[in-house]
Amino acid sequence: MVREDGRRPDALRPVTIKRHYIKHAEGSVLVATGDTRIICTASVIDQQPRFMRDQRIKKKGWVTAEYSMLPRSTSERMQREITRGGVGGRTQEIQRLIGRSLRAAVDLHALGERTVWVDCDVIQADGGTRTASITGAFIALWDACQALLENGRIQTFPITDNIAATSVGLVKGEAMLDLCYTEDSTADVDMNIVMTGSGKFIEIQGTAEENPFSREDYNQMLDLAVGGIQQLIRLQNRIMLEDLDEAGIGDA
Amino acid sequence: MVREDGRRPDALRPVTIKRHYIKHAEGSVLVATGDTRIICTASVIDQQPRFMRDQRIKKKGWVTAEYSMLPRSTSERMQREITRGGVGGRTQEIQRLIGRSLRAAVDLHALGERTVWVDCDVIQADGGTRTASITGAFIALWDACQALLENGRIQTFPITDNIAATSVGLVKGEAMLDLCYTEDSTADVDMNIVMTGSGKFIEIQGTAEENPFSREDYNQMLDLAVGGIQQLIRLQNRIMLEDLDEAGIGDA
Amino acid sequence: MVREDGRRPDALRPVTIKRHYIKHAEGSVLVATGDTRIICTASVIDQQPRFMRDQRIKKKGWVTAEYSMLPRSTSERMQREITRGGVGGRTQEIQRLIGRSLRAAVDLHALGERTVWVDCDVIQADGGTRTASITGAFIALWDACQALLENGRIQTFPITDNIAATSVGLVKGEAMLDLCYTEDSTADVDMNIVMTGSGKFIEIQGTAEENPFSREDYNQMLDLAVGGIQQLIRLQNRIMLEDLDEAGIGDA
Amino acid sequence: MVREDGRRPDALRPVTIKRHYIKHAEGSVLVATGDTRIICTASVIDQQPRFMRDQRIKKKGWVTAEYSMLPRSTSERMQREITRGGVGGRTQEIQRLIGRSLRAAVDLHALGERTVWVDCDVIQADGGTRTASITGAFIALWDACQALLENGRIQTFPITDNIAATSVGLVKGEAMLDLCYTEDSTADVDMNIVMTGSGKFIEIQGTAEENPFSREDYNQMLDLAVGGIQQLIRLQNRIMLEDLDEAGIGDA
Amino acid sequence: MVREDGRRPDALRPVTIKRHYIKHAEGSVLVATGDTRIICTASVIDQQPRFMRDQRIKKKGWVTAEYSMLPRSTSERMQREITRGGVGGRTQEIQRLIGRSLRAAVDLHALGERTVWVDCDVIQADGGTRTASITGAFIALWDACQALLENGRIQTFPITDNIAATSVGLVKGEAMLDLCYTEDSTADVDMNIVMTGSGKFIEIQGTAEENPFSREDYNQMLDLAVGGIQQLIRLQNRIMLEDLDEAGIGDA
Amino acid sequence: MVREDGRRPDALRPVTIKRHYIKHAEGSVLVATGDTRIICTASVIDQQPRFMRDQRIKKKGWVTAEYSMLPRSTSERMQREITRGGVGGRTQEIQRLIGRSLRAAVDLHALGERTVWVDCDVIQADGGTRTASITGAFIALWDACQALLENGRIQTFPITDNIAATSVGLVKGEAMLDLCYTEDSTADVDMNIVMTGSGKFIEIQGTAEENPFSREDYNQMLDLAVGGIQQLIRLQNRIMLEDLDEAGIGDA
Repeated sequence: MVREDGRRPDALRPVTIKRHYIKHAEGSVLVATGDTRIICTASVIDQQPRFMRDQRIKKKGWVTAEYSMLPRSTSERMQREITRGGVGGRTQEIQRLIGRSLRAAVDLHALGERTVWVDCDVIQADGGTRTASITGAFIALWDACQALLENGRIQTFPITDNIAATSVGLVKGEAMLDLCYTEDSTADVDMNIVMTGSGKFIEIQGTAEENPFSREDYNQMLDLAVGGIQQLIRLQNRIMLEDLDEAGIGDA
Repeated sequence: MVREDGRRPDALRPVTIKRHYIKHAEGSVLVATGDTRIICTASVIDQQPRFMRDQRIKKKGWVTAEYSMLPRSTSERMQREITRGGVGGRTQEIQRLIGRSLRAAVDLHALGERTVWVDCDVIQADGGTRTASITGAFIALWDACQALLENGRIQTFPITDNIAATSVGLVKGEAMLDLCYTEDSTADVDMNIVMTGSGKFIEIQGTAEENPFSREDYNQMLDLAVGGIQQLIRLQNRIMLEDLDEAGIGDA
Repeated sequence: MVREDGRRPDALRPVTIKRHYIKHAEGSVLVATGDTRIICTASVIDQQPRFMRDQRIKKKGWVTAEYSMLPRSTSERMQREITRGGVGGRTQEIQRLIGRSLRAAVDLHALGERTVWVDCDVIQADGGTRTASITGAFIALWDACQALLENGRIQTFPITDNIAATSVGLVKGEAMLDLCYTEDSTADVDMNIVMTGSGKFIEIQGTAEENPFSREDYNQMLDLAVGGIQQLIRLQNRIMLEDLDEAGIGDA
Repeated sequence: MVREDGRRPDALRPVTIKRHYIKHAEGSVLVATGDTRIICTASVIDQQPRFMRDQRIKKKGWVTAEYSMLPRSTSERMQREITRGGVGGRTQEIQRLIGRSLRAAVDLHALGERTVWVDCDVIQADGGTRTASITGAFIALWDACQALLENGRIQTFPITDNIAATSVGLVKGEAMLDLCYTEDSTADVDMNIVMTGSGKFIEIQGTAEENPFSREDYNQMLDLAVGGIQQLIRLQNRIMLEDLDEAGIGDA
Repeated sequence: MVREDGRRPDALRPVTIKRHYIKHAEGSVLVATGDTRIICTASVIDQQPRFMRDQRIKKKGWVTAEYSMLPRSTSERMQREITRGGVGGRTQEIQRLIGRSLRAAVDLHALGERTVWVDCDVIQADGGTRTASITGAFIALWDACQALLENGRIQTFPITDNIAATSVGLVKGEAMLDLCYTEDSTADVDMNIVMTGSGKFIEIQGTAEENPFSREDYNQMLDLAVGGIQQLIRLQNRIMLEDLDEAGIGDA
Repeated sequence: MVREDGRRPDALRPVTIKRHYIKHAEGSVLVATGDTRIICTASVIDQQPRFMRDQRIKKKGWVTAEYSMLPRSTSERMQREITRGGVGGRTQEIQRLIGRSLRAAVDLHALGERTVWVDCDVIQADGGTRTASITGAFIALWDACQALLENGRIQTFPITDNIAATSVGLVKGEAMLDLCYTEDSTADVDMNIVMTGSGKFIEIQGTAEENPFSREDYNQMLDLAVGGIQQLIRLQNRIMLEDLDEAGIGDA
C-alpha cells in the first residue's frame, strides 16, 4: 500500500534540524518533519524549580518543558490558550511527556542547582508535533549543556544518552511510520515511542481511537518505530559529531 | 521475591465493587483495590456536549470523565485544585484516559443525543487510582445504560464489551502486578494497561521513571497485566450477570 | 402535623458518626444525617497560615475549613467549582461558617504554631450539609488534637467545649427540626444554629426565603434547635468517652 | 457606659441619604452612617438573569446586588479583588445578603422580565457597611421602580414594604447599637438584622467572635436593633413621602 | 462653531478639585471636569514593589496607579472587571499611562524604599476620565508626599514639577479642547496630552478613529491642549500655594 | 554621531519580508527588522466578532489582532502569559494598536460579515516589535483579502491605503530612527508612528521615559519617522506590485 505522499509504510518523512536558530537562547533549533515545523529552545536559569527549593533538595538540577502551538499553525485558526482561560489537557500531556523524556537522558546531579527550560513552539503543524519536539529539543538541550561546560559552570557533561521519538499508527489495518495529519486523523491506533540511543524505551503510549488492537498489531508498530528512531538518532549524532549548522534525512 | 504485603508478583490486591452507592446517580459504585477507594458515578444528561452541538453532529452521544482526589486521600494533605487555580496536568491526563477508555466500549450512536458524565472521586489513595477508576466506572456506566434502557430512553444497549484496567511495574528489576503506593514510588517503570473483555488493548502507557526498559521487560509486564485484567473482567461479569450489590476478589 | 418521613416536628433524623474513616488523616469521620453523608477530615500542618506569618503572630495556631460537594451528591449533577471557574458564594459562606464555629471551641494558643485543615466533602446531600459538617468535623478535630497530645507535639488539650449544629425551619407555618431537602426547599424560613456543649450560641443565622418571620416564630425555632443540638452533643460525648468507632441516634 | 463618640448604647450614628447622586442611574443614593459612606445605584436591564432564562421562568424579574470597597476606603489600602484573583468570601456573603434582603420586599412578578442590578460601592468604611448598603439601596431601588412606573414599563409598583438594616453587638458585655469600626473590632458578638417596615425579620445573623453568647444577650441585642431600624424606616418614609433630595437623622 | 454645551472650541469644562476627600488616605481628592467625577487617592506603603525587591534595587521608591470605573458610572451599566474575568486592555492602558505620567515628576530616590499607590476610581463618567485622573491624582500625590515630609519619613520633597493632562480632538474637522462623551464618540481624532508645569511633554497620544489626520491638524490640536493644561496647572498651584480645601475653574 | 551598528541617525535597519510563510494561513509573512523577527498571519473567519453580533450590526466585518512573544525571543527567558495568569498590559496595548492601525486602511463594509484575525508572534526580539508587526501584518492582511477576492467571497477589494509603522526616539539628546533594543533601553523618549501610504497619521504615541521633551524634539522625531515609513511603504508596494515572495531594504 502506497501512502498519499508516496512513502512506504516504514519510511520517515524528510527531517531537517537547523541549529542556532534564536540568537538569545543557550540552545535552539528549528526542526522540520514533513510540513511540521517547530522552534525548540533550551534556556538555562541558575535556580532550581520551586518544588526542589521547597523540598530542600541540594546539588541537583531539573529539566522542564513547555509546548505551545501558534494560533495559525493548524489548518483552522485555534484560539490561544490564554484566551481559552487555561492550558488544555492535550498541551499538558505533551509538555509533561517532553520534560520526562529529556530528563531520562540527563544526569540531574551533574547539572547542578539550575533549571533548563525547554520551549517547543509549533510554527506549522502536520502531525507528529510531540515526537518531533522531543527529537529537536534534544539538540537544543545538548547545545545548552555544551555552553554550560564551555563557560565552566558545570564540570561534567550531564547528557548520558541520545533521546529521539516518532509516532506510528495503524491505518486501515496497516502499520505505518511517522503519520502526517491526514493519516493520523484516520488511524485506528496512534502510538508515540520515545527511545534512547542505546535502544531502550523511555515511553510507549498506544491509544486505540475506536478499534482496540491486538498484541500482534502492537509488535508490528513497535518494530517500525524502532527502525525510525534509529535513523533519527544517527541524524542527531551526525549533527553533534560533525558540528553541523543544519542537517537532514530525505530530500527536505 | 515476596512483596511487602506478602503478595506474589503476579497477584492483584483484594478488590471489591459496591453498587448503588449514591442514591441520586443513575449508576454509582464504591470500588476498592487494597487501600485505594474511589466513588464512581455515571450521570446521564439529555444534551450532547458543546463540541458536538457546535459541529452539528446528530444522533450520537458522548461519554466524558472527571477525576479528582479528596484533599486528604493522600498521606500528606494536598491543596484542592480550585485553590491551586486550575486542573493540573496529572488530573487532565487521567480524566482524558478514563473517558477515552470507556468510550471504546460504547456505541455512541446507540446512546442517542445525550452525555454520560462519569465522575471518579478518590476517597483514599494507595496507588493505582486511575486504573481502579476505569474498572469501577465501567460498572457505573453499565448501570446508567441499563436505567436508560429500562426507561425506554434508548432502544439498544450501547455497551459493546467490558473494559477493565490495571497497573504493572518493574520494581528492583522484577515485573509486578497492581503496584501499591510504596511500590509505585520505587518502581523503575510504571505501566497502565486498559483492555477489553475480548482481550484487545485500548491503552498501553509505559513510562520509565529513570531507567529505560528493554523489550523483554515490556513483554513480561504486559503478560502480568493481561492476567490481572482477566480476573477483573470476570469479577465485573459476575456482578452484572448475578446482579450482585457487592462482590470482590481476595479477602477484602 | 406529620412529616413526609413520619417524624414529629421536634425529631432529628437518624444520625451516625463513623470514626477513623480515612487511614491517612489525623482525624476523620463519615457523618450521616438521614441521607446526607459527609466525609470530614482534620489534617495537622506544622506551619501557621500565611496571614499569621505575615502579621508575625507568635505561639498561636489556626483552624480553617474547606467544604465541597461531589458533583453527583445532588439529585441533578452539579458542575465542579473548578469547571465553573471559582469557589461559589454558597461554598465560601459555608466553609467560613465551619471554620469560625470550630475555632470557637479551640484554645488557639494551646495548639501552637500549626494549622488544622478541616475538609468536609459531601458524598450525598439531602439537606443540612453545613450543620452536619460541623457536628462531624468536631469529632475529626478532637481526634487530630488527641493525636497531637499523644505524640507530645502539644502539652495541653486545646479543645475547650463541644460544638454541634442543626438546622430548623418554618414549613407551612410550623417550626420543624432538622429539615431534609424537600422540606428545606419549601420552607419559609431557614435557620442554622451552632451551639456549645455548655448551651451557649456560636452562630444564629435565620433567613426568610419569601415571607418575613415574627419574633414568636423565631423563639419557637430556637427552642427546637436547642433540643436537637443537646442530643447531638450527647452523641459526641458518648463517642469520645466510650472511645467508640461508630455510634448513632435513631435507627440509622 | 458612654461610647467613644459619646453615644448612648441605643443610639444610631448620624445618618444621611442623598438621592439622585449619579446622573446615569435609574436610582442612586449616597448613604452615610457616621464615617461610613456608600454609593448605591439601581440599574434596570430589560432581560432576566441567565438562570431564569435557562429555566424558562416567565413573567418574573429579579433583583441582584454587587458590593465592593474602593481600595482606600479602609484605614490600610486593600488590594482590589481583581488583583487578588477573585471575589472573596466576605464580599460574596455581603452581596448575597443585600440581594436576598431587597428581594424580600419586591413582587418579582410585578417587575416583569427584567433585572435590577443594585451596586453598593463603599467609598469610605467605618463599620456597618453591609447594613448601611441595604438601607440606602432600598431608596435607589424605590427610585428605579418609580422610573419604571412613570415610563409605563410596569403597571404595578412592585415594592411591597420597606427594608432597612442595622448592626448590633456585645462590647465588653454590653449590648450596643450600630457599631463603628473600632467597636466592631473589639466586640464579642456581632449581629446584623434586616427588618421590614411592618416589623418582621428578613435576616438575623449573629456571630460570636470568641465568646459564645446566651439567649438573654441575644434578646437584648435584638431589642436594640428593632429600635434602630424603626428610626431608619421613618427616615426612608420621610424621603419618599416628602420627595426630598437629602435627609438625615442626627447632626450629620 | 458653538459646542453642545455652549463652549468655544478652546474652552475647558468647569473643573473642581476637592481635597481631603477620604479620611483614611495620605492624599485624596474628588476631581470633577464637567460631569466626569473621579476619586483619586494616594496611599503610601513602606515597601518597594516586588519587581524592585527582586532586582535588589536600593534606595529608590515607586509610584504606581490603578484605575477603575464604578459599574454605573456610565450611561449603560458595565459589568465589573472581576465579573468579566480580568482587567481589560483599556483599563491597563489607562493605569499604565497614569503611573508613567506621575513618575515623570517624582524623584524616586528621594521617595526612599516605598511605594505610592494611586487609585483613580471613576464615580461618574462623561469623557476625559484618564486625563482628569492625572490632573487630580497629582494633588493626591502631592498631599501624600507632604505627609511623608511632615512625619520625617523623607527628608527631601520628591515632587519636581507639576503634571496635568487634557484631551483634545478633531470633531467635524475642527480642533476642540476637553471633549465630553458625546463629542468624543463622534470625533475623528482623539488625543491625550500630558504636560509638566515647565511646559514640556510627558505623553502625546493621538489616535485616528477612522480618518487619518495631517500634520497641520496635529499642530492645531497640540496648541489647544497646551493652553488648557496651562490653566489646569495654575489651578493646581493655587490649591497648593493657598492651601485650599477646594477650588475650581469656571462655574462648576 | 554614529550608532552602535554604524547606522546614521536617519537610517532604518535592514528589513525583509518573506511571504507565504505558513501554508495553512490565508496570508502570512516572516518580517525581519534587524534582529527582530516576527511571524504575522491573517486568518479569515466567516463570522463577525461577538460584539457585532450582539449589537446586530449588519453587512460589516472586523479586523482584530493578537500579539505574543515566544518565551525565548528575549535575551532572558520570559514566562509565558498563560503561566503568569493573564495577558499583560503591554501585550494588550500592542495588540489594540495593531488592530486599530490595520482597520484604518480597511473598508469594513466591503469585508462583509467576517472577521480577519491577525496574529503577530515574535520569534526573536531586538526592539521595534510592535511597529514591525504592523508593517508585516499589512502584507498578510493584503494577501488574505486577495484570497477572498479570488474566491469570489468578496466583490470589492477592501484595503484602501497602505499602513506601515516605525519607531523613533531621543537618545542622548539626538533624534534617531528605528531603535534597536539597546538604543531603546537608553532612550529618553520613545515614539511609535503609524502612517498611511498617502502620508497621513493613524497613531502618534510619544512617551518620555524620564526627561520630558520639547516641541522641537517632537518635530525632529516626527520628520525622521515620516522618512522611514515612506521607505517601508515603497517596499510594501514593490512586493505587492511585482508579486514577490521575498524582498528587502538594505543588506539583510
